[in-house]
Amino acid sequence: MKYQRDILKDVEGYTPGEQPQGGPVIKLNTNENPYPPSPKVLEAVSSLDAESLRKYPDPVSTKLRAACAERYGFDGPEWVIAGNGMDEILALTIRTFVDPGQNIVVPYPNYSLYEVLIELHGANLEYITMDADFQLPEALFTSDAPLCFVTRPNAPTGVMATKESMERLCESFKGIVFIDEAYVDFADESCIDFPKKYDNVIVGRTFSKSFGLCGIRLGLGISNPDIINEFMKTKDSYNLNVSTQAAGIAAIEDYDYMVDTVAKIKQTRTRLEAALKEMGFTFQQSHTNFILAHWTGTPSAKEIFQQLKDQRILVRYFDAPGLQDALRISVGTEQETDKLLDALANII
Amino acid sequence: MKYQRDILKDVEGYTPGEQPQGGPVIKLNTNENPYPPSPKVLEAVSSLDAESLRKYPDPVSTKLRAACAERYGFDGPEWVIAGNGMDEILALTIRTFVDPGQNIVVPYPNYSLYEVLIELHGANLEYITMDADFQLPEALFTSDAPLCFVTRPNAPTGVMATKESMERLCESFKGIVFIDEAYVDFADESCIDFPKKYDNVIVGRTFSKSFGLCGIRLGLGISNPDIINEFMKTKDSYNLNVSTQAAGIAAIEDYDYMVDTVAKIKQTRTRLEAALKEMGFTFQQSHTNFILAHWTGTPSAKEIFQQLKDQRILVRYFDAPGLQDALRISVGTEQETDKLLDALANII
Repeated sequence: MKYQRDILKDVEGYTPGEQPQGGPVIKLNTNENPYPPSPKVLEAVSSLDAESLRKYPDPVSTKLRAACAERYGFDGPEWVIAGNGMDEILALTIRTFVDPGQNIVVPYPNYSLYEVLIELHGANLEYITMDADFQLPEALFTSDAPLCFVTRPNAPTGVMATKESMERLCESFKGIVFIDEAYVDFADESCIDFPKKYDNVIVGRTFSKSFGLCGIRLGLGISNPDIINEFMKTKDSYNLNVSTQAAGIAAIEDYDYMVDTVAKIKQTRTRLEAALKEMGFTFQQSHTNFILAHWTGTPSAKEIFQQLKDQRILVRYFDAPGLQDALRISVGTEQETDKLLDALANII
Repeated sequence: MKYQRDILKDVEGYTPGEQPQGGPVIKLNTNENPYPPSPKVLEAVSSLDAESLRKYPDPVSTKLRAACAERYGFDGPEWVIAGNGMDEILALTIRTFVDPGQNIVVPYPNYSLYEVLIELHGANLEYITMDADFQLPEALFTSDAPLCFVTRPNAPTGVMATKESMERLCESFKGIVFIDEAYVDFADESCIDFPKKYDNVIVGRTFSKSFGLCGIRLGLGISNPDIINEFMKTKDSYNLNVSTQAAGIAAIEDYDYMVDTVAKIKQTRTRLEAALKEMGFTFQQSHTNFILAHWTGTPSAKEIFQQLKDQRILVRYFDAPGLQDALRISVGTEQETDKLLDALANII
């Protein structure tokens, strides 16, 4: 291919977690919510009329952003950008605040999509490996990069950096601190109020996990109006279709439904953690809807992954440094968890 | 704002055509289709189930791409990329084939979004002004830019470049030729088969105009599998939500509905052209669902635009070189056209 840019020649693109074809499967590999979204969301989508499909949607999703701002304690929609999944918010953050050739600093391990987006922009990824406790590494605080991504709670480890370390980071970091809170509804606290205190902070949220709306593609960036204003320039002019806007409004307005669903998942998580521990897996306590379970016995983690897959139980295995001894297991329903545990007991 | 990139400091972002607030309005300013989309599309969207909202959508929209490939005479989905409106396809084309600092060549006048996307990428827009007949300007053929955008039929003029000139361009141009066919269903022929003949051609399509699906955000890029493969790297990993994919499949499978709707619009276009001509407007024959009507009398075109707006009839006025004496009027329903013509007759 002689036409593509040089920077793309070695880029492979992001590999999403496998989506199974064919018959029934227990899918614990992409951290989807095992419970359906609020019935009010389905109602909002299914009651769209022909007129709303025919006309251009609101290019800046004002009602949705206002509803989210209100829920999260901000003055108005100018504190929020809504994007086509948090993926779009991440990509926009890079394009808005980083020139090609500059560094973006990310603690390792972390969400592998960052790496792809950084490569696509022609920026440089600077990984700083975390210690065994998976807290923020010291070199992060003194970096002079224009942007860092901190996933809190972390993916794939499930660990929360301390609130104090986050405050220290936002104070000391010279560039933008993007706090990816994709999984924070499964934790006990968040940094959602940081944009009011720090002018360099963007908090990222997604409707894919706690709200159970992967299919609808909706993410948020929450930051001060100056930063949101920059995103308004760089986003696609009509970035959210009418169904995403309708679904998002319904979801955020039925917030209690999400809270109840999360409570169920956290109960199952507690049970799953106890059972995995008994089997000899080790892990940091999870603040997410998944567990990164390390396994140093036989068969190997990779082999367990494969045997589970043969039984149509999908978990995620990362063939990457520091992760080769681990399985990332999404918390499913009670019944799915039973089946997983039975299968694991048979394999090991 | 101290954090944003230097290249964004003077960027204003794209200004979409006005979306009216409040009571009823005759909206002939954004080239929306005046007729509702196929009932089968509405059915597809409204019958989405909770499970499809909960799970990640197909990241590469395989079924939709296969259905479009079949309709347009290509072997399989590897000839098609589906995007979040043609906007996404345009932005991806720039990001995939042009380095910041390089030139992108565009005949002028043209779709003003190109300019914004080029600026955002840090590339240089090289406008080549078209002659009064709005055919492809000679300097386009000899440019050594890595990318050119040709809208055919052109927006906002409505004029078709000749097929022969398009062939000559694709043969002589060293970089990628993007043929934006947003409005081509309103014309009598297209370049849809060019990707089979030229390895540097991408044909862009949208579901916003002829299919009447602005609200759903769906565009296509049709090109050879090597180029589509590059797009698969650069697009957002899950760029189309489940409702867009479902709507697109239903729309392309109910192709005859679109053809019938387009026939109605073309009939109204013929009547509108005759009436405008009689009033003293001049224009090139339109091959789209709008007419760029030039007016050199009094009151001025801008004043007519304003007076129509006061009567809640929206048309588009571009305060840009070569366009200041013109109104771009979308073809509405028969009834909307009657009201527009009555209002115009009163004003002039």
